[in-house]
Amino acid sequence: MRVVRTPAEVRAALAGVSRPLGLVPTMGALHAGHLALIRRARAESATVAASVFVNPLQFGPNEDFERYPRAFDDDLTQLREAGVELVYAPHVATMYPPDFATAVDPGPVGERYEGALRPGHFRGVATVCTKLFATVTPDRAYFGAKDAQQVAVLRRIVADLDLGIELIVVPTVREPDGLALSSRNAYLDADQRAAAPALHRALDAIVAAVRSGERDAQRAVERGRAELRSPLREAYLDVVDPRTFAPAPEIRAPALAIGSAWIGTTRLIDNEPIEATA
Amino acid sequence: MRVVRTPAEVRAALAGVSRPLGLVPTMGALHAGHLALIRRARAESATVAASVFVNPLQFGPNEDFERYPRAFDDDLTQLREAGVELVYAPHVATMYPPDFATAVDPGPVGERYEGALRPGHFRGVATVCTKLFATVTPDRAYFGAKDAQQVAVLRRIVADLDLGIELIVVPTVREPDGLALSSRNAYLDADQRAAAPALHRALDAIVAAVRSGERDAQRAVERGRAELRSPLREAYLDVVDPRTFAPAPEIRAPALAIGSAWIGTTRLIDNEPIEATA
Repeated sequence: MRVVRTPAEVRAALAGVSRPLGLVPTMGALHAGHLALIRRARAESATVAASVFVNPLQFGPNEDFERYPRAFDDDLTQLREAGVELVYAPHVATMYPPDFATAVDPGPVGERYEGALRPGHFRGVATVCTKLFATVTPDRAYFGAKDAQQVAVLRRIVADLDLGIELIVVPTVREPDGLALSSRNAYLDADQRAAAPALHRALDAIVAAVRSGERDAQRAVERGRAELRSPLREAYLDVVDPRTFAPAPEIRAPALAIGSAWIGTTRLIDNEPIEATA
Repeated sequence: MRVVRTPAEVRAALAGVSRPLGLVPTMGALHAGHLALIRRARAESATVAASVFVNPLQFGPNEDFERYPRAFDDDLTQLREAGVELVYAPHVATMYPPDFATAVDPGPVGERYEGALRPGHFRGVATVCTKLFATVTPDRAYFGAKDAQQVAVLRRIVADLDLGIELIVVPTVREPDGLALSSRNAYLDADQRAAAPALHRALDAIVAAVRSGERDAQRAVERGRAELRSPLREAYLDVVDPRTFAPAPEIRAPALAIGSAWIGTTRLIDNEPIEATA
């Protein structure tokens, strides 16, 4: 496994490698969710590359960029054991030199929910992924279903910018009690951790309400909201079109239950798909 | 020479072609300025592709998108005779389907001068070129020096998005009386055409003022302004940093004299480099 730091080194390392080439972009602090992405990439790619980069562009000024978990040596051990051939781990100054000015803006799909709570977040995600895709030129890129709005944003820019990359979305990996794996779970103390699965129960309650015949999104969401008790504080809970992230007031087509809750100073997100209804 | 209409057709046509691959993006209505780009690309590329696409994103609502000159059959004849292997001529609906939403924003370099007169213009240029570059994946792309701010914008996005493409800037081709070739020159009537070279004379006067020792940009610009007489009406005339397109009040480094003037309902642009001064 090679570890490189610049676009030129990536291009030199990947010149002539066997394809298909799979890319797993990460911010490091790897957990079993990331390893599921790498396993899937490994299974269907001749060459697997991963990136490790905590992207300052996608953090707001009052967010957790500085304290975001970093575990680079442990990440490299996991990536090596998972069979990754190339790790791209650029420095911030390489990705964003002082005169850096370009932004990739995905438009309305990035404006609600996470986009509203984190102004500029999806512009940062779209910009860094455009850079990573241009540098690595993968055939396929792998993302977790947990970050569903990120997936919708990236589908939008890949289609709109003719990037010619297939996005592969891998199901969310969960703890036995239903909590979605996230690097931010490390911020939770024992009591917060014990309470955290309520977010997933809220989403399950929305799905169950739809399954039992509820077609009005707000009534279904109320059923979920009943699960969100202290110490969780709702940031949002809704049913959306998974492609546009527009609210779906009447649940008629395949839809997505999405939710976010604060526990202390940590905000968790999760989602559950709602099957097509007759 | 093959003519194709979709990104998938471009990728299929270019799979395995000899490199380096040169791309000459155009809006059609080809003239000797475009042919100079193609000659340069032909001289240093194993394969030459050209695009012909009048990009609605880079025209404002009150601009000349509808009346912009179109001469596709004649363009194809010229491209074939110039030795182009592949022409990518997408339909507007292919480039911008109804749910298209992504924008590539180059930041401050695109905000003054043409960017101020044409809000959204350089976002449109940056977006379409990102698409063309992602589709064709050229090693080098060729642009005319006449559109100097466009060149600065494209240098910005190629660097910022790690596109790994070399931009080659080809000197402006001029009529014997100094008028820069432009597809928009076709809009001029005989009297307007006779007056049009005054724009280039104004830029030459700025360069001459600097050459004779003037270091104050505004005094140099005044010397140029004296050349802009009716029927020309100044849109802007200035001295800028050619990389950032920021005004250069004191002329100390390599700089660029830029100008634009209206003649009737047509607006022409031009520029002249100012050599490094001691």
